[in-house]
Amino acid sequence: MSPTNPVLTHHISSQFNEDLQLVNTKFMTMGGLVEQQVANAIHALLDTDAGMAVDVQFQDNVVNQYERDIDEGLTLILARRHPAAIDLRMVIAMSKANTDLERIGDEAAKIARIAQNLCEEGGSPRGYMETRHIGNQVRVMIHDALDAFARLDAEQALQVLLADADIDREYQSATRTLMTYMIEDPRHISRVINVMWVLRSLERIGDHARNIAEQVIYMAKGLDVRHTKIEEIEEKVQQRK
Amino acid sequence: MSPTNPVLTHHISSQFNEDLQLVNTKFMTMGGLVEQQVANAIHALLDTDAGMAVDVQFQDNVVNQYERDIDEGLTLILARRHPAAIDLRMVIAMSKANTDLERIGDEAAKIARIAQNLCEEGGSPRGYMETRHIGNQVRVMIHDALDAFARLDAEQALQVLLADADIDREYQSATRTLMTYMIEDPRHISRVINVMWVLRSLERIGDHARNIAEQVIYMAKGLDVRHTKIEEIEEKVQQRK
Repeated sequence: MSPTNPVLTHHISSQFNEDLQLVNTKFMTMGGLVEQQVANAIHALLDTDAGMAVDVQFQDNVVNQYERDIDEGLTLILARRHPAAIDLRMVIAMSKANTDLERIGDEAAKIARIAQNLCEEGGSPRGYMETRHIGNQVRVMIHDALDAFARLDAEQALQVLLADADIDREYQSATRTLMTYMIEDPRHISRVINVMWVLRSLERIGDHARNIAEQVIYMAKGLDVRHTKIEEIEEKVQQRK
Repeated sequence: MSPTNPVLTHHISSQFNEDLQLVNTKFMTMGGLVEQQVANAIHALLDTDAGMAVDVQFQDNVVNQYERDIDEGLTLILARRHPAAIDLRMVIAMSKANTDLERIGDEAAKIARIAQNLCEEGGSPRGYMETRHIGNQVRVMIHDALDAFARLDAEQALQVLLADADIDREYQSATRTLMTYMIEDPRHISRVINVMWVLRSLERIGDHARNIAEQVIYMAKGLDVRHTKIEEIEEKVQQRK
């Protein structure tokens, strides 16, 4: 899945490498599935596709099973192979990112449940444009975070962190717009609030993609950049080139 | 901090034990701090205490620092001590639970930010009773999850999982009540929605406490009970007594 991953090629043909490659393949497959789940959940909402909304909720079980499999694989590697240095960082980063992928899957399932409700209630008069826009952005964030993970690319991970700051601003702006709309025209409060929950889920998906990107920087550079200002992260990543 | 923890007493005086004890002490201290943050955030909201609302947001930095310290300590243990069996499970469980504690801290900070807004706007006409009630329940959940963690008590962890199912029901009910109120009297939509965000944060805090409880069961019994029906978990925990 990630032929260019430098960790997986630096000790070719060892048993450790085979074990890690196997878990890495599962992780990347799970990532692709989660990305698709988010796309499908947004599609179900915007195109009032109740069938797809049900399907996304059902597929969340598959995401959950991947989470368990990956953690089991990582625990076996820790118990048997005693990885060190960048290998250990990769195992830890994958363990953390695994949790974030599963949570993204949860948020996709929540969006799908709301999409199903809105299919029955008849849709919201507002908020779809914002959903489409922010939805596209978080999909790109997930994709880029996973791509950066596969290639150990701290520079690309940095771009994901920058994108998350944009999402947060746009989410705030969209929420204010919808709030104003509800105050002016309270007839559709229930439906509009449902769209607000969707936007909130998208904003959280952005946070999880950012978390994965932070783990990429940890894995590639050995830097824990959580809770750190973006300018400071940029500087530190440049220094460790 | 947790003198009865069986993992920490089974190999007395080894260097491994000292290292793990140190991280465990930090973890328990962080847990106590996070519990207090949630209590203070709810207090700030219910008693319109703007000073405390600011303080909670400021203290979130301390929680974040604990998260980094604990993960660093756990990584060093993995790199140097190669823990196996229940020791390894404890390291993994603490790493996962560490993330959940930090997220609970985040939610407390979010509640405090909303409390600060509501101090300025003049409070919401509805939702405080529900906030107090669900707030008290999630505080008990955090406390019990941490207590179960300290004592490796799978039975107590099971009680936390059961409590989370209650919270989810009460959250749904409170949300419906507030939605009905807004439709009938839309003048205070903005303030009531703020209280809905608080309830949502409390519900998520309950989820994180449940995640910690699941890690206790993993640590104590070697069972991965994530995404498993509660009856099935009860049966499995009983079997491994």
